[in-house]
Amino acid sequence: MSKPTGVQTLIRPAHEDRLLAVLRERGAMSRADLAQALGLSRTTLSEITSSLLARGALSIVDTDASVRAGSGRPAERLALDPASSQYLGVDFGHRRVQIVIADAAHEIIASGSHHYSDIDGWDTRLACAFELIEREAAGSGIHFGALQGIAIGVPGPYTTVPLVSLREGWGNHEPSRGIDKAFKERFGAPAIVDNNTRFAALAEALGTASEAVQDLIYVRLSDGVGGGLVIGGRLIGGSAGLAGELGHVTAVPEGDRCRCGKLGCLETVASVTAILAICRARGARLDSLEDLRAAVDRGHPTVDAVLHEAGAAVGRVLGSAAMTLNPSIVVIGGEITQAAPVLVEYARRSLRYELSSVAEAMPVLRAAELTDMAGALGGVATLLNRSSLLADYGTAVHAKASIRTTIQTIRSIS
Amino acid sequence: MSKPTGVQTLIRPAHEDRLLAVLRERGAMSRADLAQALGLSRTTLSEITSSLLARGALSIVDTDASVRAGSGRPAERLALDPASSQYLGVDFGHRRVQIVIADAAHEIIASGSHHYSDIDGWDTRLACAFELIEREAAGSGIHFGALQGIAIGVPGPYTTVPLVSLREGWGNHEPSRGIDKAFKERFGAPAIVDNNTRFAALAEALGTASEAVQDLIYVRLSDGVGGGLVIGGRLIGGSAGLAGELGHVTAVPEGDRCRCGKLGCLETVASVTAILAICRARGARLDSLEDLRAAVDRGHPTVDAVLHEAGAAVGRVLGSAAMTLNPSIVVIGGEITQAAPVLVEYARRSLRYELSSVAEAMPVLRAAELTDMAGALGGVATLLNRSSLLADYGTAVHAKASIRTTIQTIRSIS
Repeated sequence: MSKPTGVQTLIRPAHEDRLLAVLRERGAMSRADLAQALGLSRTTLSEITSSLLARGALSIVDTDASVRAGSGRPAERLALDPASSQYLGVDFGHRRVQIVIADAAHEIIASGSHHYSDIDGWDTRLACAFELIEREAAGSGIHFGALQGIAIGVPGPYTTVPLVSLREGWGNHEPSRGIDKAFKERFGAPAIVDNNTRFAALAEALGTASEAVQDLIYVRLSDGVGGGLVIGGRLIGGSAGLAGELGHVTAVPEGDRCRCGKLGCLETVASVTAILAICRARGARLDSLEDLRAAVDRGHPTVDAVLHEAGAAVGRVLGSAAMTLNPSIVVIGGEITQAAPVLVEYARRSLRYELSSVAEAMPVLRAAELTDMAGALGGVATLLNRSSLLADYGTAVHAKASIRTTIQTIRSIS
Repeated sequence: MSKPTGVQTLIRPAHEDRLLAVLRERGAMSRADLAQALGLSRTTLSEITSSLLARGALSIVDTDASVRAGSGRPAERLALDPASSQYLGVDFGHRRVQIVIADAAHEIIASGSHHYSDIDGWDTRLACAFELIEREAAGSGIHFGALQGIAIGVPGPYTTVPLVSLREGWGNHEPSRGIDKAFKERFGAPAIVDNNTRFAALAEALGTASEAVQDLIYVRLSDGVGGGLVIGGRLIGGSAGLAGELGHVTAVPEGDRCRCGKLGCLETVASVTAILAICRARGARLDSLEDLRAAVDRGHPTVDAVLHEAGAAVGRVLGSAAMTLNPSIVVIGGEITQAAPVLVEYARRSLRYELSSVAEAMPVLRAAELTDMAGALGGVATLLNRSSLLADYGTAVHAKASIRTTIQTIRSIS
């Protein structure tokens, strides 16, 4: 065969992806049936199946001898082999690591979590994660013979660009560098790292209804405040991987100084740490989310006022973001939404005001539905979606290049 | 042939789009060469070319008889026929309509504009537009025999959802309903309508550099304030077509009442109308952008203070949006950026503060590069890109459906 051209290089991943989708939908098929279903030439189809067989994504399950009417050599039938590939999602939180493992049929075949201290370094956290993964895999009889990919969520902001400007204590960016390599060496599969809140946003968009949500804003109120965006059905990273940092949008002009250096960031009034500290500064003795829950249950007026301010700030920031992005759903995550559900109500009021000029733009606002596993689940979803994203990327770039030329032509004659 | 299956229905537009892209890149080709380049079966290729020939998107230009080595019947060669299709972009501003016409080779073959009064109704505006289009087309020898599509930009907010909550005077939404039908009936081609600021954002993203900008926020300061977003290489509409309404993000808490009903929207301090009115209220006699330009040139202190407040508000709103979206470029449009370039500088300072905690996230901030034609150009770009967008849509939906199933499985076992 001749060497693939530029065009073929772009098209190949899209064909592969559709072939896998057809097999996932219909089960085992012969090469001839696949070629017809996909409209591909026998030659092209055969190249694609050879590559997928070599990489263990497909297996030959039987022949069509038993159902075949005519004579001649029976045709092999190909299928996705669920056991032939695995996908690993790992979420490093501030105080625990969570993992999930999915197979080629997109079923979750193992999951688990392990706690550590928030002062433990990355060496300890990695050791915890490796032990957890190997224990859970062994317990479920999983051999990582065909691990296709690993997605690792870390506290944000996370980007592949070195962030020299970041203050110590905001995220765990620099220390978490290199963990993709550590995972790759340990398990022999490609690894990607991203912000765990972004992965959680994807999981919330995929997991909530009969249809995947196309436009969603997710904010998580935890030790810090992070966010993630799904826009037009895609998880958004931004130009340097920094999209979604809702915790560092100014919410209270001239407010308290944030660990990031600015004044009045959302995080200074709406993180769990900030809410507890403000309550204490106003005389309410709260040391934990459990204390907060109890204070909310008995209607503590100071605590209610602090939660009102926090919720209003969350609603203002979400309101600006929603006026900008017009999402159908806005999700507030973090355990505090269970401990103090009234916070979500206060946020809703403030969000409703911000969008009052176009009531039709008011999204559904709700607390997160997924458990602690959201980050790891979103990671797996990213791995499963990766080939489509790449195919899309190729197509989009090609189409846009020609339009850009047009606009440049226009400008030169105008 | 058997009826196309669901899978084939999804795949067909993607094949068509790639075929057109290959012909645009390489020029005339035989069906056999096309089938090989695209990896398609002869049957599939032939179905696609028949459909495109019938729709006038392709034409048969010659045969390969002159370059053919062997014997046998010469093969026909197919090509895009520039004259075989046209695309029309129309932008209705508050005081003028602008049009551009492109051909199948993505070249602009005609353009023009016509002024009307901002109190003229849609009947008058439509009549102006029709007359302009027919005059320009006739002047360039264009016959709309194969007009493939019309994109019509109107002042925002614009959505296909009826906006019962909109105050009179904000945008021209309700009155502009039905103009797509009027265009369709007049020119016999499918028409789409969208916010003209959104189209302008797309044009700015496509037209500014050697590479199309993938992540861009555009805000236009004019009689009102509107915006548009390009995220991940795609123009963003939001769940109800309302994305990008930056003019109605709260910029000054407890500020003046906006025509939309809220207090302190960006538009109340940064539209041209607002800036002139605030200057007058503070004793500076300004009635027009020309007056403003003169006052800026002689360093009028009151005017400078008003522009500082306006620029700071623009920077704050853009800062929140940029912390959320991490764009590489932020563009401020509108004639005021020429009349008062210092406004862009003031916005830059305020934007830089908002992003100071992650200096790497600071986008390039600049005044718009395109002329008055941006809206119409962006409309044409949308038409040219449409088939890719649809192909992308099909792929993405298919891939996501299977991931969603996974996440639902996970939730049921967790």
